Amino acid sequence: MPRFFIAGANFGSSNVSTVNITGADADHIRVLRMRVGEHLVICDGNGVDRHCRLTKIGDGFAECEVDETVPCPAEASVDVTILAGLPKGERADYIVQKCTEAGAKRIVFFVCDRCVVKLDAKGADKKAQRWQRIAEEAAKQSGRGIIPQVDVVLSYAEALDIAVKTELPLLMYETGDRVAMKDAMQKAGQFKSSAIITGPEGGFEKYEVDLASAAGIQACAMGPRILRCETAPVVALTAMMYETGNL
Amino acid sequence: MPRFFIAGANFGSSNVSTVNITGADADHIRVLRMRVGEHLVICDGNGVDRHCRLTKIGDGFAECEVDETVPCPAEASVDVTILAGLPKGERADYIVQKCTEAGAKRIVFFVCDRCVVKLDAKGADKKAQRWQRIAEEAAKQSGRGIIPQVDVVLSYAEALDIAVKTELPLLMYETGDRVAMKDAMQKAGQFKSSAIITGPEGGFEKYEVDLASAAGIQACAMGPRILRCETAPVVALTAMMYETGNL
Repeated sequence: MPRFFIAGANFGSSNVSTVNITGADADHIRVLRMRVGEHLVICDGNGVDRHCRLTKIGDGFAECEVDETVPCPAEASVDVTILAGLPKGERADYIVQKCTEAGAKRIVFFVCDRCVVKLDAKGADKKAQRWQRIAEEAAKQSGRGIIPQVDVVLSYAEALDIAVKTELPLLMYETGDRVAMKDAMQKAGQFKSSAIITGPEGGFEKYEVDLASAAGIQACAMGPRILRCETAPVVALTAMMYETGNL
Repeated sequence: MPRFFIAGANFGSSNVSTVNITGADADHIRVLRMRVGEHLVICDGNGVDRHCRLTKIGDGFAECEVDETVPCPAEASVDVTILAGLPKGERADYIVQKCTEAGAKRIVFFVCDRCVVKLDAKGADKKAQRWQRIAEEAAKQSGRGIIPQVDVVLSYAEALDIAVKTELPLLMYETGDRVAMKDAMQKAGQFKSSAIITGPEGGFEKYEVDLASAAGIQACAMGPRILRCETAPVVALTAMMYETGNL
């Protein structure tokens, strides 16, 4: 069923039974050649789905009536923040799209020592906007109840600061002193939030891993195969979804 | 450490202590600016690694001495065949690369009802060769002990025939009567081989799922999120590697 995200503001009253759609979403309904009476899902972006029927379609607008309001079943029981060392080119797009499909709550790119891409604040904003659109598309397509927020932070310290605010912050590292990610998750028992930190193409500097460790973030291994920087976040997120019963 | 695959034929005697490298691999050693005395791993493509030291580098050849012969630690305890409905464009490349990183033993694309791409036998051969090169690159990069074999079969029936020869053939399906993939794996107990079947962009026809079911292949669910055709094989494979202790 077609799925649209419409900001929460349109649903001020919980009794609202009619929803007006304008702008790009209304255009999209025309592109899909939908007709009056057809069903669609309107999501408020906060994990609540409204199952609707189209009642009017006009030029640049559409109206529908809400049949049922339900929690979106696609949202995981654990809020996972993906923190990825900013990679080159299309790899970042890929991380955003696939981690949205795989159930991430938030995606943050950060700049660290071995990042090849250099960004200033303005460039970061522009890129974040682009990635936010990719996240929205992927959220619609995969039936998500939220659009993961995509951010860029310009320092590694900021990234660690975001990670330590979750219950289970983990850093994926290819070498040295590590625990199996499975052991780290199972030892933590039930957790409601987690952060998964992965490096850029060249990986982490040892001092970056030490810094994370000093902040209480465990260095984790994901088996004996070396994963590309754009593959690691998706594999780690999938493992976490599997372990926590969300897959 | 740089990793090269050299066909098993070069290792006729198990006591061989010198390996000659020619062709593209020798060129690659020059490109990497490796020097005499440096270490590399030569893999026979059958899961055996030879840790070597370079002893000679010439024009179009190199020679090295074997220090140690060990089983490649990156190979999983379960042989997983990925069977994917042939998708369009770069999606197939992506499946080959990511499933190689994630530990697949074999990757087979098949043509089924909703495949958009049409292939004849000649086209299939050409594409398979290209994907085989992508698999080789990914195997080197991720430290695999084998290069997954990539094949194309032109019928769905052939794909099912490959799947049923494994101990645990599973088909990923988005709707209808399914078991959770986790339950299917846990109920199977220990298994040494498995097949994961995923659909093309448009998914499977109902009769195709029924046919698989009649052949003893279980239809499985992977959680409430809809995955793109190029994402599903990687997520399913990761879940299997996790469940079987290979991640």
